[in-house]
Amino acid sequence: MSETSPENGTIQTFLTELASAAPTPGGGGAAAISGAMGAALVSMVCNLTIGKKKYAEVEAELKDVLARSEGLRVVLTGMIAEDVAAFDAVMAAYGAPKATDEEKAARAEKIQAALKTATDVPLACCRACRAVIDLAAITADKGNLNVISDAGVAVLSAQAGLRSAALNVYINAKGLEDRAFADERLEELEGLLAEAGTLTEQVYAVVKAKVN
Amino acid sequence: MSETSPENGTIQTFLTELASAAPTPGGGGAAAISGAMGAALVSMVCNLTIGKKKYAEVEAELKDVLARSEGLRVVLTGMIAEDVAAFDAVMAAYGAPKATDEEKAARAEKIQAALKTATDVPLACCRACRAVIDLAAITADKGNLNVISDAGVAVLSAQAGLRSAALNVYINAKGLEDRAFADERLEELEGLLAEAGTLTEQVYAVVKAKVN
Repeated sequence: MSETSPENGTIQTFLTELASAAPTPGGGGAAAISGAMGAALVSMVCNLTIGKKKYAEVEAELKDVLARSEGLRVVLTGMIAEDVAAFDAVMAAYGAPKATDEEKAARAEKIQAALKTATDVPLACCRACRAVIDLAAITADKGNLNVISDAGVAVLSAQAGLRSAALNVYINAKGLEDRAFADERLEELEGLLAEAGTLTEQVYAVVKAKVN
Repeated sequence: MSETSPENGTIQTFLTELASAAPTPGGGGAAAISGAMGAALVSMVCNLTIGKKKYAEVEAELKDVLARSEGLRVVLTGMIAEDVAAFDAVMAAYGAPKATDEEKAARAEKIQAALKTATDVPLACCRACRAVIDLAAITADKGNLNVISDAGVAVLSAQAGLRSAALNVYINAKGLEDRAFADERLEELEGLLAEAGTLTEQVYAVVKAKVN
């Protein structure tokens, strides 16, 4: 990974670039960071539960959760750069020459291929955020009570990441000519959103009850 | 601001520290970053709307929104460090000597003072996130249609920041002996949460309709 990759920039730099008129990083990168913060906070709750006598009964389960949350954190952090690459590919395809019929056909094909990737990248972000929500639910239920609010922040971050990335799935799927491809993705997305919405509110209520 | 302040660390470093067993950065810092990402995305939509002929009619209004979102971004970014300081002050107060009655009394007073700050810091984050939601609503309504999804991500990030910071208000207000102080904060918070919940769903629906 290069020194100038989005993941290795400072938080200040990322926020300044997010605010700027440059098209990337944009909402897709913010979605990935929200999901990654959710995964990191699941890990934090696990790390502050594992090894404590009081929580010995859940230790094995939370070690498994930690391995999975750390894996998801790596995946989601990598999606900051994947989002930029997918956007750039769509822009490059639209910029391809279109003087002749052959060029027009090649350009149209490139655009469709780039839009497929630009649909699948945020959908993968949605799936990863959905998985973080499941892990946040376990930590909210079984994690160290002293840091249980962090499980609540984890679920909110992951849910914001999911719904944010969903907007990019909608945008790019809309431009697809292969409707079977698009409809399959949109159907999966609706399932992810429906489950996640209910679960997030359940987890937040559990956490709120524990901190009050 | 020092080179090692939370705001100047890389995204990777922040996420790794978030995931670690260290108590800070934790959910409070993540809440501030969510809010700051929301403010930055409002700014992005403004920056990609201002100066475009098609949006000349809303230019003056979006210039004003931009000035306010950039102000909120600075405030929210600063709250990453304020959250750490407030937490450290509470921990330091609990760690104060308590061998004599005088020490016990001084320690109790310190704890209460630190808890008041640790209630007010996340409440200020909630207020700032609430303000970002209002600005996101304007950009979702009037911003450049090509980047309207970023207004949707802005509102989701700000709302996640608000509800996340709310958990820290609850936790710290719970320990306050000055119930008038605590109840005043909790009442304000409930108002912020109620308004924000409704508005966030309205803005998300507007954006979803525009991208579909």
